[in-house]
Amino acid sequence: MDKVKRGERLAVMSRVLTATPNKIYTLSYFCEMFSAAKSTISEDTAILARTFRTFRMGTIETVTGAGGGVRYRMSGNVVNARPFVSGLCQRLMDRDRILPGGYLYLSDMLSEPDTVRQLGELIAAEYYDTPADFILTMETKGIPVALETAAALHLPLVIARRSIKVYEGGTVNISYVSGGGQIEMMSLPKRAVQQGQNALIVDDFKRGGGTARGMVSLMAEFGIKVTGACFVLSVRGSQRVVEDEKAVMVLDPIVDNRTATVRPGAWIK
Amino acid sequence: MDKVKRGERLAVMSRVLTATPNKIYTLSYFCEMFSAAKSTISEDTAILARTFRTFRMGTIETVTGAGGGVRYRMSGNVVNARPFVSGLCQRLMDRDRILPGGYLYLSDMLSEPDTVRQLGELIAAEYYDTPADFILTMETKGIPVALETAAALHLPLVIARRSIKVYEGGTVNISYVSGGGQIEMMSLPKRAVQQGQNALIVDDFKRGGGTARGMVSLMAEFGIKVTGACFVLSVRGSQRVVEDEKAVMVLDPIVDNRTATVRPGAWIK
Repeated sequence: MDKVKRGERLAVMSRVLTATPNKIYTLSYFCEMFSAAKSTISEDTAILARTFRTFRMGTIETVTGAGGGVRYRMSGNVVNARPFVSGLCQRLMDRDRILPGGYLYLSDMLSEPDTVRQLGELIAAEYYDTPADFILTMETKGIPVALETAAALHLPLVIARRSIKVYEGGTVNISYVSGGGQIEMMSLPKRAVQQGQNALIVDDFKRGGGTARGMVSLMAEFGIKVTGACFVLSVRGSQRVVEDEKAVMVLDPIVDNRTATVRPGAWIK
Repeated sequence: MDKVKRGERLAVMSRVLTATPNKIYTLSYFCEMFSAAKSTISEDTAILARTFRTFRMGTIETVTGAGGGVRYRMSGNVVNARPFVSGLCQRLMDRDRILPGGYLYLSDMLSEPDTVRQLGELIAAEYYDTPADFILTMETKGIPVALETAAALHLPLVIARRSIKVYEGGTVNISYVSGGGQIEMMSLPKRAVQQGQNALIVDDFKRGGGTARGMVSLMAEFGIKVTGACFVLSVRGSQRVVEDEKAVMVLDPIVDNRTATVRPGAWIK
């Protein structure tokens, strides 16, 4: 292969690093890819770091020590978080979204690939330093955001289900009291997780917290600790389920079925 | 801002274009971003296109005419498709994966962010030229791959559900015969889609095709045409549901509950 020029190397490194956030690549990996010296790649990395900072596209970090190298992280400045979340809040306050029983119609937003990717990146940025071996969500609507969060953190996604499916193999099941006051079931395949792991919960909506508490109990059955929980939308005043709990948006309880007030979570900068 | 160097521009353009596959950016967009002349950005685009081709990272394309500009597409060479899919087939042939009733345990694979992203890109690359206004999937296990396909095609994702939820608002519902022979229900919010649109089905598993036929009927209720369907795994010999139907992997019917034979679909290069 002909000698690869700096601009070409930067384009490739930009692509490789951002395609797999939080994954560490050794400098040797790029040295081999471009048949270039370590000093050259080191300089490329510095230029890339500076460029990403200037254009607010996240962080290119050098990790030192054994297992070190370079990685990309979506830091809080990737998406301009506050205006992005404020825009979602505005959309949610549309009167047509209020559904019987004080619910808000969210489904469309939660299946827009651009929106869920930005939400996932936003949530991931807050949890880079929280110990977690996997992201836990409950089917169905939370899956897209949870998946994008998992991708941004370079962690597996584990999905709890509402029913036992033959194709899951052996499962552990618990009963829990849902928001509606009914007793419901939550199920997870035995082979999905391991004792002693840490879980980070990501879900779409929290009202009374029944489902979230169910997820914590389910994890307890497996000997797994829940180190954090983040919801796309939670109702103001609902009881905390874990200590490190956040919501991207907070909904005031809907009292008259006509007005929904939704605000960005206080941590959204 | 200081003058941005070529290498820095290439790093930023690489990041912006690959973060939103199939989305067209005008040259003016980048001219403004970098305070650079159109001829400069044009040259940058050519370098980027050549570099992406050399390193098999997909295609940077120039689209001419009104609404033209530059876009990134994951063409078939992004992932080295054949070895990637063969690797998945190998994993699926593990004896422990065979479940009662001739099912295969797939859930772990379908919630690995890296795997589903590659699957989504692989599927998307086959459907760039198929008319589709949205990706349709059925909850639950197909959602991650369907979402990644939708992201790669820059299309919305629409999720059909097995039950009616209060928070969905008005829904259209149909009954269909599932693989197990039971009559099941499928439901979609009225506001999710519009008459006259085209749908591309992406789902995890097809056996008898009952669910897929259900999805086609559901679309017919809305006056929507299904222009293609792609499954992660389908059982060999199952009847086609739409003309343009593909599977990433094909499973021979499991006869003795001991051996699963899984091969890449014929279209996987």
